[in-house]
Amino acid sequence: MNRETEREADRRTGVWLIGARGNVATMAIVGARAIARGVTGETGMVTAREPVASLDLPPVDGFVFGGHDIAPESLVDRAERQRDRNGVPDGETLDAVREDLAEIDERIEVGTAVNCGAAVSADSEQVDESLAIRDVVNLIRDDYERFRERRDLDRLVVVNVASTEPELADPERYDTRDALERAIDEDDRDLPASVLYASAAMTAGHPFVNFTPSTGNALGGLRELAVEESVPHTGRDAKTGETLVKSALAPMFAGRNLHVMSWEGHNILGNEDGLVLEDEENAAGKLASKGDVLDSILPDIGHSRVRIDYTPSLADWKTAWDYVHFRGFLNTEMKMQFTWEGSDSALAAPLVLDLVRLIAHADEHGSGGLQPQLASFFKAPLGVDEHDFSRQLDRLYDYADRHS
Amino acid sequence: MNRETEREADRRTGVWLIGARGNVATMAIVGARAIARGVTGETGMVTAREPVASLDLPPVDGFVFGGHDIAPESLVDRAERQRDRNGVPDGETLDAVREDLAEIDERIEVGTAVNCGAAVSADSEQVDESLAIRDVVNLIRDDYERFRERRDLDRLVVVNVASTEPELADPERYDTRDALERAIDEDDRDLPASVLYASAAMTAGHPFVNFTPSTGNALGGLRELAVEESVPHTGRDAKTGETLVKSALAPMFAGRNLHVMSWEGHNILGNEDGLVLEDEENAAGKLASKGDVLDSILPDIGHSRVRIDYTPSLADWKTAWDYVHFRGFLNTEMKMQFTWEGSDSALAAPLVLDLVRLIAHADEHGSGGLQPQLASFFKAPLGVDEHDFSRQLDRLYDYADRHS
Amino acid sequence: MNRETEREADRRTGVWLIGARGNVATMAIVGARAIARGVTGETGMVTAREPVASLDLPPVDGFVFGGHDIAPESLVDRAERQRDRNGVPDGETLDAVREDLAEIDERIEVGTAVNCGAAVSADSEQVDESLAIRDVVNLIRDDYERFRERRDLDRLVVVNVASTEPELADPERYDTRDALERAIDEDDRDLPASVLYASAAMTAGHPFVNFTPSTGNALGGLRELAVEESVPHTGRDAKTGETLVKSALAPMFAGRNLHVMSWEGHNILGNEDGLVLEDEENAAGKLASKGDVLDSILPDIGHSRVRIDYTPSLADWKTAWDYVHFRGFLNTEMKMQFTWEGSDSALAAPLVLDLVRLIAHADEHGSGGLQPQLASFFKAPLGVDEHDFSRQLDRLYDYADRHS
Amino acid sequence: MNRETEREADRRTGVWLIGARGNVATMAIVGARAIARGVTGETGMVTAREPVASLDLPPVDGFVFGGHDIAPESLVDRAERQRDRNGVPDGETLDAVREDLAEIDERIEVGTAVNCGAAVSADSEQVDESLAIRDVVNLIRDDYERFRERRDLDRLVVVNVASTEPELADPERYDTRDALERAIDEDDRDLPASVLYASAAMTAGHPFVNFTPSTGNALGGLRELAVEESVPHTGRDAKTGETLVKSALAPMFAGRNLHVMSWEGHNILGNEDGLVLEDEENAAGKLASKGDVLDSILPDIGHSRVRIDYTPSLADWKTAWDYVHFRGFLNTEMKMQFTWEGSDSALAAPLVLDLVRLIAHADEHGSGGLQPQLASFFKAPLGVDEHDFSRQLDRLYDYADRHS
Ligand SMILES: NC(=O)c1ccc[n+]([C@@H]2O[C@H](COP(=O)([O-])OP(=O)(O)OC[C@H]3O[C@@H](n4cnc5c(N)ncnc54)[C@H](O)[C@@H]3O)[C@@H](O)[C@H]2O)c1
Ligand SMILES: NC(=O)c1ccc[n+]([C@@H]2O[C@H](COP(=O)([O-])OP(=O)(O)OC[C@H]3O[C@@H](n4cnc5c(N)ncnc54)[C@H](O)[C@@H]3O)[C@@H](O)[C@H]2O)c1
Ligand SMILES: NC(=O)c1ccc[n+]([C@@H]2O[C@H](COP(=O)([O-])OP(=O)(O)OC[C@H]3O[C@@H](n4cnc5c(N)ncnc54)[C@H](O)[C@@H]3O)[C@@H](O)[C@H]2O)c1
Ligand SMILES: NC(=O)c1ccc[n+]([C@@H]2O[C@H](COP(=O)([O-])OP(=O)(O)OC[C@H]3O[C@@H](n4cnc5c(N)ncnc54)[C@H](O)[C@@H]3O)[C@@H](O)[C@H]2O)c1
Ligand code: NA
Ligand code: NA
Repeated sequence: MNRETEREADRRTGVWLIGARGNVATMAIVGARAIARGVTGETGMVTAREPVASLDLPPVDGFVFGGHDIAPESLVDRAERQRDRNGVPDGETLDAVREDLAEIDERIEVGTAVNCGAAVSADSEQVDESLAIRDVVNLIRDDYERFRERRDLDRLVVVNVASTEPELADPERYDTRDALERAIDEDDRDLPASVLYASAAMTAGHPFVNFTPSTGNALGGLRELAVEESVPHTGRDAKTGETLVKSALAPMFAGRNLHVMSWEGHNILGNEDGLVLEDEENAAGKLASKGDVLDSILPDIGHSRVRIDYTPSLADWKTAWDYVHFRGFLNTEMKMQFTWEGSDSALAAPLVLDLVRLIAHADEHGSGGLQPQLASFFKAPLGVDEHDFSRQLDRLYDYADRHS
Repeated sequence: MNRETEREADRRTGVWLIGARGNVATMAIVGARAIARGVTGETGMVTAREPVASLDLPPVDGFVFGGHDIAPESLVDRAERQRDRNGVPDGETLDAVREDLAEIDERIEVGTAVNCGAAVSADSEQVDESLAIRDVVNLIRDDYERFRERRDLDRLVVVNVASTEPELADPERYDTRDALERAIDEDDRDLPASVLYASAAMTAGHPFVNFTPSTGNALGGLRELAVEESVPHTGRDAKTGETLVKSALAPMFAGRNLHVMSWEGHNILGNEDGLVLEDEENAAGKLASKGDVLDSILPDIGHSRVRIDYTPSLADWKTAWDYVHFRGFLNTEMKMQFTWEGSDSALAAPLVLDLVRLIAHADEHGSGGLQPQLASFFKAPLGVDEHDFSRQLDRLYDYADRHS
Repeated sequence: MNRETEREADRRTGVWLIGARGNVATMAIVGARAIARGVTGETGMVTAREPVASLDLPPVDGFVFGGHDIAPESLVDRAERQRDRNGVPDGETLDAVREDLAEIDERIEVGTAVNCGAAVSADSEQVDESLAIRDVVNLIRDDYERFRERRDLDRLVVVNVASTEPELADPERYDTRDALERAIDEDDRDLPASVLYASAAMTAGHPFVNFTPSTGNALGGLRELAVEESVPHTGRDAKTGETLVKSALAPMFAGRNLHVMSWEGHNILGNEDGLVLEDEENAAGKLASKGDVLDSILPDIGHSRVRIDYTPSLADWKTAWDYVHFRGFLNTEMKMQFTWEGSDSALAAPLVLDLVRLIAHADEHGSGGLQPQLASFFKAPLGVDEHDFSRQLDRLYDYADRHS
Repeated sequence: MNRETEREADRRTGVWLIGARGNVATMAIVGARAIARGVTGETGMVTAREPVASLDLPPVDGFVFGGHDIAPESLVDRAERQRDRNGVPDGETLDAVREDLAEIDERIEVGTAVNCGAAVSADSEQVDESLAIRDVVNLIRDDYERFRERRDLDRLVVVNVASTEPELADPERYDTRDALERAIDEDDRDLPASVLYASAAMTAGHPFVNFTPSTGNALGGLRELAVEESVPHTGRDAKTGETLVKSALAPMFAGRNLHVMSWEGHNILGNEDGLVLEDEENAAGKLASKGDVLDSILPDIGHSRVRIDYTPSLADWKTAWDYVHFRGFLNTEMKMQFTWEGSDSALAAPLVLDLVRLIAHADEHGSGGLQPQLASFFKAPLGVDEHDFSRQLDRLYDYADRHS
């Protein structure tokens, strides 16, 4: 059969989720299966809209899911908890996919949790902590491989949607492929789980998406590897809420030459991600990637701050209040405020599906290394300085135009 | 002297303001003179920022102001009233330009007020209402001409910043240059003042900016004339507050394929413009141009509405509250709200100066007719369908890149 | 059996709802039955909290429901529509009471719709429009009576929760009991349905609650009757959302001697009540009762306005944005804004149950006429000038203290 | 002359401000002198409004000001800085009182700064740090005494409006008058400045107002002294912004039996007070007094938090965003949000004047110890458990009714 003319619809795409029982993963799986079962639409998916929809992308209803997690709660239980606490998914949708979830849950393997900070709790399961790092990486790679074979997949995309890890100190020490390999060989206990998952995927040639603020594929050594081996990868920290709005609004102030004196952002959220982020150490990475957006678009900004607080009753809902104090003509001081009330994982899940489809496309077209056309999806787009949402999107549209 | 090499800085640019004693006009004049006197900066001016700043534009400190109005209150009195009620301009700035204002005020002529609805009050002065329309147009053109000669100007830009007129019924009847000329000759009493001002300017070859929602240069007959005679003109209804924000935010919902079910906008403002707009008839045009933005960017929008209410205590400040109810993945309903608190004329004034500079540039480079590169300045950009602020700006930046 | 010592728990209280298939009624019935079935609690009910809880009040789980309506849609269908559109009640609660609803729906009689304006649609059923007014009143009274007998009730409370009627012109013409009786006898076609329902109830000695802004028991003639016959009645227009907040906040500005220059209120809602209120005529009464609160608490207020707009996607949710512009010491201008996002009928329903309990208590204790202790429940409390929510509540607490 | 019949207007009241060159103090002095000079009104003063206005209170225009501070910047300079940064006071008002400020500034003495944490900077002046504590107290008392004599005052009220101190550990050790006196004698270096100022005032019989969250008169030993010597005193932490709103709004949720699940409060402010409060240690007291209000009014509240952040561009303006997530009938989750934008010192200053007048009244009528009628002024009213603003005010009105 001629590969050139085979459409993605005829091929089998595997989606391996690190953190496969988390909110984002659960909602992505529920959504994909609900689409497959015809009980929901594609609202919220960028790839369902022109010009991107014209690309030959793997269809969502053909995705084959698997993954790692360290939490024992099953996908079905998690989805039911989300329904009860957030009202998303609704009961009808959940009923339609419950069996799919149960089946997928059996393909979720126990993962590694080295250097995962507060994400690890008393309930957590994880691979034997006394194993050498090299052995952990091999274990993970074997999990990927076994899944690919058993499910007879044409391609496997690995997506990190696990809890945010504490920031890695001095990441420069792993700036080359060699240095990273050596560290793994020498059983360097500083390497965090996200790097091990990414390394296992990328050395095996699997496209990799880092949806989180964790280090993963952002490490120099892995970026080198990706270029040399032509593995497409992208990240980091998906842009779903307050930062998305910032990246659409800040350009307006810049474009009108209005001077932003202060931009305060206050996020409150009630899900596990919020709980983990309250842990100062784990929050550091998140706050950093959120902060960059404003500094990049508004280089003269006087002051900005982002707070993330845990508010249990909100469940998976996130509310952001932003206050922008700016100065215009004749030194006139003015103000803009907004509140954003979004369901965190309902915003994130369709992007997981979009990213799988788009990185599969890059892989299919032999484009390795970072993928600048995917910048609009991330708070800290690897390899791209542009933070203006509209211009980031234009890169995606240009890519779509070039390839359709 | 070789015209090619003469820089705009060495040439004299006249700025003729229709509604020269209004809030916007007063603030534009105060600002320009404060810049000339070195007591304020150029924050809020798009032309002061790269890449536009690289164009050879007439400097603001060289602008020579004149204009028409129908209100007797002097520029100085108006500026003092603005200082007391709004705190803009501040006392120091006003002191620095008071004499300039007094001098400019002497160059303000009495205008025509045909079909101006609620803008005309007991205090209004206006040219003899019994004059034939053709004579009114001639009078206005003579005012422009006299100013240009006496002040020895190289170029005269006419800007309409007069009160919003009631909407003109059946504007198609004036869709050709001939039809319009005939109507003027036949003393058609339906023609509104804005059309007479624009017609007088454009037939005399003066670039024309319509900052208001009034008809003016939007009429088919004048657009035909502009092309045939190569007169640059632009409009209409400057985008300064809520609509500006909408044009930056709505593309975000579109870009993420989020379905906006309802977008409610409520504006409260306390200036004369607000009072005139409360008059339902005069508001019609404004509400229409505000509404287009959403329909164009979000063709599937479920429902939208804009309200403008007069709240006296706000003086020249305008507060907008917008409520956006949208649906994402898995039918999840979410919300965004914002409030915008701006000083209306402090936002508008720098754009008046920008537009004068940019239309003078077009004129200098022989570009007649509508100016799509100026779309970002307007709520209802003539001749341009694009309402996405970021993309409108890109047109301006492309223009700047091409000409610098 | 000695009446003196019989507790309310041993007696049968009937609740007759005018508009029994509307949002408020449906939610009140669902809630009462859900309490009876032990599947929900009493949050939101004032009578469930001390000091009011100490009164001997008829228990909610013993309420026997019946009513009038002009809409054919059954209670079950309405409740299902509410569940689907608003998420309230949730599916589980609805399942627990579905049969109760079906049974109650059979006790809902066709009502009269004279002078009900936009509330009457093509679908409406109503008693023969050609009947004489006196006959209509008699029909209604017979409905009450039959219900009371068949259900063997000790007491019947009639509550008007029907759609808001257009305002009645010149209500003074019915200022005496005689004038009203004469009008009914003379077949005066200006009398609105709410008056006929109230009149039928009160002449038969049934306590009457006017939850709506409609005229009903507010008429002079009925107030006279209530005093003479010692029938307890109360109203009007329940205070559930923006006005409730106003009545708690405005006293703060008053108490600190801060001068409110402007108070703007903008309500958007998506239920049938909103649709009826968009009809200018029907809205008049509502806007009037909302306006009084501020004028009464802040007699020096500079400007206030209330807008109610219909926003379909909100279903039964109501969002209010209020903007308060005030002046403090040294002429300092300051601002407060709030948004309130409430489920209209979930806020109203518990108050219906509270009011039934409390007016039954008054009836039991022989207190006829208006009931000032119930002022906190209403936007336009009949017979009470106090609009400060806290002080209104103090009257209720004093009543509770006196009677427990 | 018969004391009984002498009106307060004929007597001389001294006002000694600890922190006399701070924002609150400056604005209180500017306001009092502006009232005296007839250039401003009494908006924002509770004592200017009935029923309190009927009391025989010392008139504001007769106040004689003096005070302590540790900052060298003069009152005039501070007031000019406030005008430039905040627009309050305005230029005209400042001009009218500039000479009064200069004169009062000469009566400001250098204070003590023991245990004042971040409030003490490189610029600070203070009494010799090596002095024994007893000597410091004596010095302060001498300052009070000298002022009273030189200015020939009938009464001296001491008001603490100095920067917030770090919280005092184990305040119980000073729970008796004896323990406190002993500590002073034994040169206990843990005692903070606020206690020394309060002790010096109260042992000399001067009424004392603690406008701040610092310990001061809240100490057990001083409360004992106040009762034994019949010195009126009150505090602590004036209620001017977000907490004021909370104390008006929270009773509404309680009164309607709505369950508040979360109440998030985020304050941003740009004045020196904000800078000092960013210092975690100094903020502890403030956050504590803010938190009590909700817990007291809503004992079942699920979660609450208050954040105070420093946002330089806001100058003396404070913006609070509060988000209230509550549950009503049928488990319906609803939300209320507000933003409050106030000028901190313009809100505080009139209360300083009110408190001086009212505590002078208590002193005149021989009422020593704590003053529960003043609870409405404070976030943490000493000796009063009631936090409902409306009920607190009722205590003041009852006092006024009793004494007029
Ligand atoms: N809108 C959004 O929700 C959004 C946006 C951007 C980024 N993110 C990021 O996505 C990630 C997931 O968010 P979430 O809301 O689903 O969080 P979650 O806490 O619900 O899920 C995380 C899952 O990862 C699992 N996990 C933790 N450490 C692991 C490890 N070492 N190996 C395997 N599994 C591990 C946890 O057990 C859990 O099931 C977070 O890093 C978050 O910051 C989310
Ligand atoms: N941000 C903004 O302020 C803004 C934004 C977009 C558009 N606009 C438009 O700009 C215009 C001016 O706004 P403004 O706030 O300065 O209003 P304004 O009422 O303060 O000033 C209008 C001036 O026009 C004068 N005028 C009215 N009819 C006239 C006529 N026929 N001939 C000559 N003069 C006439 C009036 O006397 C007045 O001095 C309005 O149409 C407004 O809608 C303003
Ligand atoms: N928070 C609240 O929901 C709230 C607060 C205060 C007042 N109210 C008032 O309560 C009333 C009911 O509100 P709703 O949201 O339930 O409205 P709704 O439109 O859902 O229900 C009104 C019901 O009344 C019926 N009706 C109309 N005219 C009638 C007549 N003449 N006889 C008998 N039935 C008639 C309609 O058919 C409908 O079933 C309105 O007047 C509203 O203004 C509601
Ligand atoms: N709305 C309000 O502004 C408000 C409300 C409640 C409480 N407060 C409290 O009032 C106090 C003053 O607030 P502000 O905004 O005026 O602050 P500020 O920083 O402007 O002024 C405080 C003044 O106190 C002086 N000071 C500090 N330590 C001192 C000491 N040991 N002895 C003498 N002077 C000393 C400082 O030099 C400064 O001049 C703070 O404690 C604040 O928390 C203010
Ligand atoms: Na763009
Ligand atoms: Na009270």
